[in-house]
Formats: sequence, C-alpha cells, structure tokens
Amino acid sequence: MPESTTAAVLDPALLAEIEALRATTSATRRATVQAMEDILHVPFPVLDRGFIRVVDYMGDDGAIVQAARVSYGRGTRQVREDRGLIRYLMRHRHTTPFEMAEIKLHVKLPIFVARQWIRHRTANVNEYSARYSVLDREFYIPAPEHLAAQSSDNRQGREGVLTGDEAAEVLDILRGDALRCHANYDRMLNAEGPDHDPARQGLARELARMNLTLNTYTQWYWKIDLHNFLHFVSLRADDHAQYEIRVYAQVMSDLLERWVPLTAEAFQDYRVGGLVLSRPALAVVRKALAGEAVVQADSGLSPREWRELWGVLGEEPPASAG
Amino acid sequence: MPESTTAAVLDPALLAEIEALRATTSATRRATVQAMEDILHVPFPVLDRGFIRVVDYMGDDGAIVQAARVSYGRGTRQVREDRGLIRYLMRHRHTTPFEMAEIKLHVKLPIFVARQWIRHRTANVNEYSARYSVLDREFYIPAPEHLAAQSSDNRQGREGVLTGDEAAEVLDILRGDALRCHANYDRMLNAEGPDHDPARQGLARELARMNLTLNTYTQWYWKIDLHNFLHFVSLRADDHAQYEIRVYAQVMSDLLERWVPLTAEAFQDYRVGGLVLSRPALAVVRKALAGEAVVQADSGLSPREWRELWGVLGEEPPASAG
Amino acid sequence: MPESTTAAVLDPALLAEIEALRATTSATRRATVQAMEDILHVPFPVLDRGFIRVVDYMGDDGAIVQAARVSYGRGTRQVREDRGLIRYLMRHRHTTPFEMAEIKLHVKLPIFVARQWIRHRTANVNEYSARYSVLDREFYIPAPEHLAAQSSDNRQGREGVLTGDEAAEVLDILRGDALRCHANYDRMLNAEGPDHDPARQGLARELARMNLTLNTYTQWYWKIDLHNFLHFVSLRADDHAQYEIRVYAQVMSDLLERWVPLTAEAFQDYRVGGLVLSRPALAVVRKALAGEAVVQADSGLSPREWRELWGVLGEEPPASAG
Amino acid sequence: MPESTTAAVLDPALLAEIEALRATTSATRRATVQAMEDILHVPFPVLDRGFIRVVDYMGDDGAIVQAARVSYGRGTRQVREDRGLIRYLMRHRHTTPFEMAEIKLHVKLPIFVARQWIRHRTANVNEYSARYSVLDREFYIPAPEHLAAQSSDNRQGREGVLTGDEAAEVLDILRGDALRCHANYDRMLNAEGPDHDPARQGLARELARMNLTLNTYTQWYWKIDLHNFLHFVSLRADDHAQYEIRVYAQVMSDLLERWVPLTAEAFQDYRVGGLVLSRPALAVVRKALAGEAVVQADSGLSPREWRELWGVLGEEPPASAG
Repeated sequence: MPESTTAAVLDPALLAEIEALRATTSATRRATVQAMEDILHVPFPVLDRGFIRVVDYMGDDGAIVQAARVSYGRGTRQVREDRGLIRYLMRHRHTTPFEMAEIKLHVKLPIFVARQWIRHRTANVNEYSARYSVLDREFYIPAPEHLAAQSSDNRQGREGVLTGDEAAEVLDILRGDALRCHANYDRMLNAEGPDHDPARQGLARELARMNLTLNTYTQWYWKIDLHNFLHFVSLRADDHAQYEIRVYAQVMSDLLERWVPLTAEAFQDYRVGGLVLSRPALAVVRKALAGEAVVQADSGLSPREWRELWGVLGEEPPASAG
Repeated sequence: MPESTTAAVLDPALLAEIEALRATTSATRRATVQAMEDILHVPFPVLDRGFIRVVDYMGDDGAIVQAARVSYGRGTRQVREDRGLIRYLMRHRHTTPFEMAEIKLHVKLPIFVARQWIRHRTANVNEYSARYSVLDREFYIPAPEHLAAQSSDNRQGREGVLTGDEAAEVLDILRGDALRCHANYDRMLNAEGPDHDPARQGLARELARMNLTLNTYTQWYWKIDLHNFLHFVSLRADDHAQYEIRVYAQVMSDLLERWVPLTAEAFQDYRVGGLVLSRPALAVVRKALAGEAVVQADSGLSPREWRELWGVLGEEPPASAG
Repeated sequence: MPESTTAAVLDPALLAEIEALRATTSATRRATVQAMEDILHVPFPVLDRGFIRVVDYMGDDGAIVQAARVSYGRGTRQVREDRGLIRYLMRHRHTTPFEMAEIKLHVKLPIFVARQWIRHRTANVNEYSARYSVLDREFYIPAPEHLAAQSSDNRQGREGVLTGDEAAEVLDILRGDALRCHANYDRMLNAEGPDHDPARQGLARELARMNLTLNTYTQWYWKIDLHNFLHFVSLRADDHAQYEIRVYAQVMSDLLERWVPLTAEAFQDYRVGGLVLSRPALAVVRKALAGEAVVQADSGLSPREWRELWGVLGEEPPASAG
Repeated sequence: MPESTTAAVLDPALLAEIEALRATTSATRRATVQAMEDILHVPFPVLDRGFIRVVDYMGDDGAIVQAARVSYGRGTRQVREDRGLIRYLMRHRHTTPFEMAEIKLHVKLPIFVARQWIRHRTANVNEYSARYSVLDREFYIPAPEHLAAQSSDNRQGREGVLTGDEAAEVLDILRGDALRCHANYDRMLNAEGPDHDPARQGLARELARMNLTLNTYTQWYWKIDLHNFLHFVSLRADDHAQYEIRVYAQVMSDLLERWVPLTAEAFQDYRVGGLVLSRPALAVVRKALAGEAVVQADSGLSPREWRELWGVLGEEPPASAG
C-alpha cells in the first residue's frame, strides 16, 4: 500500500477490506486513470484521526472533452486539442461538461466539519448512523500549532496562536470534556464491557448520542460530480475557510491533479489563481494603466476594498502617494 | 399574540422584533391566506426550548390549481373544481404544481435534530454561525416520559421508557455534561463576564464550539417548496422517525392545514393514510378477496412483511388458521 | 459487436469511434459488472432512428450495500445478506444508498421526446447544440401501428389506431412537412452543397433552427444516479407515459437488469408491480376482507377510483352485486 | 393597467383574469414591495408575441439581510447597514441569503427559447401541455433588423444582418413553413372548425404536435429563488447569449431593480460589470502597473485572450508597441 497510509488510526476491519479491494482487478472498457488506480481505496490521513480515500471514480479529462464535443458537434472535431478545449470551457464557465465526471470518497471527519461540508447540497451522502450503531471514542484534538486565537478585528477570523498556560488549559479542556462525555455516553447506553449492568435497560442510542461533543469523528460515503467538486475545493481550500476543513480540501485538490490533470491546471489558472475585479475596481485599474491619478475617495471602493485591491495587484496604493 | 407562544423561552430581542412585525400590515395583490396571516411570525413551541415560526409564505391551494391549469390548458377550465383537481394531482403523483407554493420558517432546534433535518437537500438554509457568534447556553433535555430505552430487536428503535434511578442518572448526566461543556466553551473563549481575563487572548470561536454537546440548540431560516415540504412531513411525522424530529414535523403538519387545506386533506388521504402494497402483497390480497387460501410460506413475503401486511389490513393472518 | 446494433441508422464516424472504444480494455480496481462491459458503447436502437448506448457506469449492487453498511455501521455486518438488505432499502424507501451508483448514456431522440425527458432535473446533460452545428436531416415518423387516435374521454390518451386514408394522409403530412422544413433550413443557412450560393451570407444557425419540426432528432450525453434513474423508469415505462418515451424507458429497464440485478428485482416487486392504496381504498379492502358489504356510494372513492381499484384487485366491483 | 401591456397579443380570457387579479387586494403581514405590487400580473411584452408577467414574489432586500443576520448572529446587528451587508454578501459570494427570496413568473416564449431556458435546473416549472391541449397558431418571426447572418469566424455567433432578397426570402420561408405546419397539425387533429370531418378520428394530440416548428410559442409558470434568478440573468443577459433569450433576461433585469434595488445595484457592481482575470492575466496587469514591459508571447495568454484583455482594460495592447 502506498506511503500515504497511516495504519495507526485505521480500524483493522477497514484495513482488511482495503487490502482485499486493492488485490482485485478487473478488465474494463471504461475510461480509466492509472494515477487514480494507484491510490484507489487507500486512505490519505487528514487531521489527527480523519482520512479521505477514493472509493470509485467515473470519467477523466477525455470524458469532459467527449461531452463538450457532443454539444459543439462536428464543428469542433480535430479543431481544438483537448487541453485547449478544457481551458476554453473553464474560461467561459461552460460548466455542464465538467458534470460528466464523478468521484466517490469515503471520508472520516469531525462532526463540526461535517456540518459545514454538508451545506454543499449537490452531492450524495451516506453517513454513519448513530441511531443504528455506537460511535467510537474518537475525537479531534488540534495540534498545538493550530490552537488559533480569536481575531479581534475579523469576527470569523483567527489571529496568532495560543501558547503557554492558556494553550495547555485549552487542550486539557477539549480532551477532558470529550472523554467524559463519551464515557457517560457509554454509561447511558449501558454498553457492553466491564461496566455493563444486566439489570439496566440502557438509553436509546438515538438519544444517548446527544451527549457527545462536536469534535467526535463521524464518517460517510460522499459522491459528487467534478463541477461541484471544483466548487467545493475553490470555496474550502480558500484562505477564508476554517483550517479544519481546508486540510480536507487540500487533499481533494491533490486528487484533482491525479484524476484530471488538464482540468486541474485550467482550474488553477482561471478560478483559484485568478481575480474577480468589481466594476469600480476595474475602473481604477483602467485609469492607473492609462497613467491617470486614482484616489480611494472617489473610487467607489471602501478603504478595505481599496487596500485589498492594491494588495493583490502587488503595488503600494497610489493614494498613499497622493 | 396568539396563545401558541410561550414567551418564557424567547429571547427578548426576538419578541420585540415579532411584535413589530405583527404590527405592520401592507396591502398586496398576491394570493393571501388569512389563517396564515393570523399566526405569521408567531413561534410555536417545540421540545423544551425550540420553536417553529412562519416568516413568509407564497401561494395557496389556488396557486397549485393555477399552475396545473397552465399545464392542462383550456381543456380543464371549469371542468374540474379545485378540490377535485388537487386530489387528482396528488393521486397521480403530478408533483410539479405543488412546487409552485413556498414557505419560509424560522426554526430553533437541537444540533442532533438539525443534522437529520439538513439531509433534505432541496431547500434553502441560513443557519446561525458559531464561527461568527457565540452560542447561548441552551440545550435540549428530554422530558422524563421521553427517556426511551433502546429496543432490543430493532436497532434504531425505542422500547419502553427508563424509570427510577436509571432515568434520574441519565438526566443528571445530560444536564451536567452540557453545562460543564458550555462553561468550558465560555472559559476557552475568554468570554465577557466576571471570569473575563484581559491578559488572555481567547480561543477562536470556530474552534471553541467543538467542545459543545450535540443537544445544544441552534437556529436557522429554512425555505422550501410545498412538494418538498410534504415529502419532509411524510418522512418525519412518520412513526419510524425519531421523536425529537417528529414533534417538529407535527407542527409543520398543522401549518399545512392552515395554509393549504385542500392539499392537506389530499395528502392525508393519498400519502399519509394510504398503503403501498408490494407486488407479492398485492397477489396475497387478490387471492384472499377471491376466497382462496393464502399462506406465508409461498407468498413471497418474509414473516415480518406478512405480519405487517395483516396488521395493516386489520385481520388475523389467515396462515395462523391454516 | 452484439446483435443489438442496427448499423443502418448510425453515423459511420460514430461506428468507428465505437469500434475503437470497444477494442480498448484497461485493468481497474473499481467495481465492474461484466454484463455491462459486454454491451458498453453499443447502441440499442429505439424508434426509427434513435438509440441508447451506455457510455460509462459507476458501481453495482455491491456499491449500494457498501454505502448502506456505512450508514448502519457494524450492526448490519454479516447479519443481512446483500439481497435482503437491498429489498429492505427499497421497501422502506431508504433512497440515499441508491444514489451511490451512476450511469452515463448517449441518447438519440426526437426533440418532442427530449422536451419531456429534460423535465427530470436531477441529472447532467450535454446536448448537441444547433447554435454551433447543423442538424442532420433525420426525423421520427411513427410506424403505422403507432398512429394512435385521440382518446375521446381521456384528454391525454390514445384510443385505437388510424387506418386507411386517414393514416396515409398523416404519414404524408409528417414526412412532407419535415422534409420541406429541413430543406428550407439548409436553404436559409446557405449550406454547403450543390445549392450553395457564394453571393449569399446565410442566416445564423441559431435562428435557422427555429424552422425545424419537433420530430427532428437531437442527441445528448445524459448522466444520472441510480435512484433518479429508477424514478425516471417508474414514471416513463408506465402505461400512462407516451409511447415514444416509453420505448426508451423500456430499454433503460433492461439495462437495469444487466447492471444491478438485485436492485432491478426489488424495484419490480416494490415499485413497478406494487399498488398504492389511498386511505379510503384501504378502508374498502379491510371491510371486504372482513366480509362486510362495501358500496361505492359511501366509500369516499369516486366512481372512477372505485372501478380502478377493483380492476387492480382482480374482482368484479362488489357494489354491482349489491 | 400600466402602459407595459400590449393588449393586442393577449388572449381575452387572460386579460379578464388579469383585470380580476389586479382588482383584488388583501392585507398582509408579509414583506411587501410597492414597486412590485404596481406591476403584479401585468404582462411585459417580449419579442413579437411573448411576454413575462410577475405572478407572485416572496421577500425583498430586507429578507436577505434578515437571513444573513441569523447566520452572523448578534455580531452584525446594527453594525452594518443593509446596503453594506448586501454588498459584502455579493462580493464574497455568500450566496445562501439570496436564496431566501423567490419569484414566480408567467412566461410566453418560443419553443427553441424554452429549450435553452429549461437548462437552468434549479427552478420549478409548469408548462402548457400539448398532450392535453391544442397549441395556438402563434409563432415567432424575427423583426427584419434581427435577421442575423452566421458569423464566419465564431461558430455560435452572428455577424451583420441579412438584407434585400435574402432577408425577404428568409421571412417568407419562416412564415410559410410555420403556417403550413400548423394548418396540417389542425388537419391531423381533425380539429373543430369548418374543416372538421365527423367521419375521421383525428390523430392523438401528443403525436400531432411533432409536426410543429420550433418557433411555435409555448408558455409556463416558472418559479425560482433570487440567487438562481441572478445566475440566469448574468448568463442570459450577456452579449454571448442569443438575442431571443437575451430580451427576456433584460426584462428580468429590470424586474430585479424594482424588486430588490440594493441587490440589483450590488449585482451590477460585482457580477455584471466586473471582470474575471485569469492567473496569467493578473500577472500581466501587475507587470504593466509596475511599469514593466509585457508581451503576448511570454504571457501565457493566447493571442485572442491577449486582445480581449486589453480590450476590456481600455488600452492598446502594449505588445503592438514592442
């Protein structure tokens, strides 16, 4: 199995299943991507106990081109090579051909991350059910370097990292409360084990679960088309996304390069690495290029937008000179 | 304000907002339902601290008829009266006219209920963000009569109610863990209050929230079309649904009768109160009606399906007589 | 290539592409279905010039079981075998595991059929664009045995078949108008060919297409998950569906048996071959089974519903005896 | 009724219905927009015989703010005024609050336009059914100034306008073929009228319709949330959209200003009037602003992208000087 696996965090039953799946090969007439076959079923570790693994995929860069050529008909045959066509589609936001490829992932993730993730509605999900089964004693504890402090000027932001006693106390609290809540969960369930009491009934699983903390790990199968996968990655791999979902999106971004390298390249050039200029920002850039003076006050941009614009353009705000 | 309100559980700021909204009336040419106007903005209490309140609605029974008549054209004018047409649509699963009405609710609910609810993807949601704001110290504690025991033969079921010491202990655990986790949440945030320490930074809100338990209340605005609203109610007001989401679905079922009474009646007759017979079950019923002997063994039904069928048909299983 | 192909109606370029695709085989670790590999890429003829061919698929019956077992957790392992679990999911309308398989078809179909088909929104589509490319001179002409007459008592129904002079005239009209409209389309485009006039500009393709008749063939790639595929088949293979879309749904129903035989069997037993009893119809059946007299007048059923009910139950309406 | 109506093209039955609807006013506690009430139910003419009329709406700019404030919680109260918050949401692509408003339109449009329109899947539709009812003899004939010629260098584009004999011939063909096809449709239906022959059966409506041309008018009720409405307008009011759908999108853009003026303004500033720079285009702009030389050859942009970039920036391509 590739090095990406950290066997330590994996359930032995899952490991055995993965070995069996990887040992089985079939012949197919379907579009196949060798770089995906290489890592199929293998978990990529994320956070302290989470993972992403590819369970199945449909299509490749060629499938996008194939669908686009049905739309454009004979006109496009041989005229454009695949790379050019994919870049054209991405540039002009012709999104439907990207819906023609599909990927299915098995993801293990903390519940508070799952709650953000599920907001992407155009996807298929089967989550582990805590009505049917008992949740394991597994929860996310941040590494010390990710114990971010609350930003004082951005309500959803982080700012610096907690250190010293404050950091130690936070880690103690997170670990202690998660452990106690899970132990009490087991107690209320009257779970199998040394503390099991045959004289007690045990609370229904669907109720007992409410005592668990939001960093408890859950898992699901998640299937999505490539267009919506790109949308997910563009939002969640972004700097504004919370670190704990961003690390999942980064693994997904790496998977993208394996799966559909031409699409991944176009996605970086036209979506991730690009810039959306507002109408007033465009007016400022036009003036600046024409050598005219520009000042924030009459730009139609707020001071914050003004700073952000010049930050991205790599220049000192000219107004500071004026 | 109607009696449905239990002012006790409501935030004073929300109460003031509701009073202001209810005091404002405008003239409109849109379809209007008086029974909905009567309760608009008013919270209906659910569980110990939750509520549902209607924030807006679009359309009425007439809007469904209006859309259906566009489909069927002149042919249907005056031929069928509204009630008959709505029943026809419901019976034949012509679902698109029911998508022509829309409702928007403000719901306060425990997070573990929210996690089930959000699985209905064809809806619009804005949830309170615990990245931006601090969650109140409010969590769901079941009433003693809802402290269900785990069913021993149905993995997702309940069976009986915990009593005595076991019940008391469960309530202590739920209350104690929720309180402690929330107090530690405040502590990690270094929240305003007597314990605030200006020398500490405070953990980022987006991280601190992971320490909360799944019975913590959240809230959201939720907007859905009538067709998908019916689907939600049919699944979640069902006996197999967990009690804690079923009580929300029951309020929604009551709202249905206010909002679209003809649709609500047809929904009860054709969806909620009806029965889906499988192909083998239909064969059994046909034989029984023809006076032929029927036995489970050659019916194609499992023993469980056989029992369930005769239960719904209100008869002793005839096989028991054979 | 399997016998399903009628090479006559296929574009030679498409035939060559199919031969090339079928000659290419790769090794894969993904779930593979031999019965689908056997017919992959091969067009199944539908109507006079249409076809359906499978371009790709993801998952099999096992993928549904795999996703369901994530939901149900350890509880279900080994307890239920695959067939039983799939039947359980179908019976209880647990639909999400069926979303975990996906199929992609290439379909050639008349525009008036495409307009019905596209109403199924939860799917991905890339259609041949008549803005970019010129539509071929191909249109659907019904076989004489499908020249249905308008039903006099059912506004959307057919009743009998036209014969003799009337049939002949209809076929002449359909063929004549389609040919003339297409010839005029070519003329307005100033298309390549003997009539091309270098002195004329030619009307824009996006405008000229409006002159074509609705039986002109179009084509598209269409991708959908198994749950929505089943929904499509259950609506469109039904007797109430128009013949011209039903024949496509029947091919899709056959594909279902190849692809996911356990799901196909459960689908027939619980969805296609079953019966939905309304609340009043259920009351009638209960009374009849208990030996009580039942009459239409106080059943809550309309005369039409009454007749339909007893038709399905295989009995004479008992009221006729009373 | 406002001047927007051209009574000439309207069915008298529809006119009477509109008069009745406009004469009825109710009191409501819902959010109401006076500028929408003013034009509610009134058809705005589009093309030669089409229209758009608002049948219902839910929410206003305030509803978007209200939903956003639930998400952001107390933190945002009073801090930002409505306009600033809406601009913030639009700039950062926080799209869910815009889903909290909804609009329902009645649209009459040619079938070839309807086929483009329906590709927007996140909407609710009830279309006039040609299986149930007979389509009127109404079809779109372009005004002479819109008889666009096919572009020779852009496969989906228009270039200039046909004139003289060629234009006259095209108009004759479009009118003649549509009339003949519709007359033959009536003939096959054995429609009521002077030519009705009681001895003939008449072809089923669902079949006869296939003889109609794609410029025949159809109509539907169409309901969509504001977020998806904006997406529709941004794609279809764009210069690359076909003229015949663009004119509908322009009416929708006007409706936007009536309905949600703050959202409409932000939409113009951040979406319609803005510019998306790709990663290489951004690099070019940064260099140019820094006074460095830029040439197309090493820019990573194609010659066409290079020309388009400088066109939008309002400058001569500097490479032309190098």
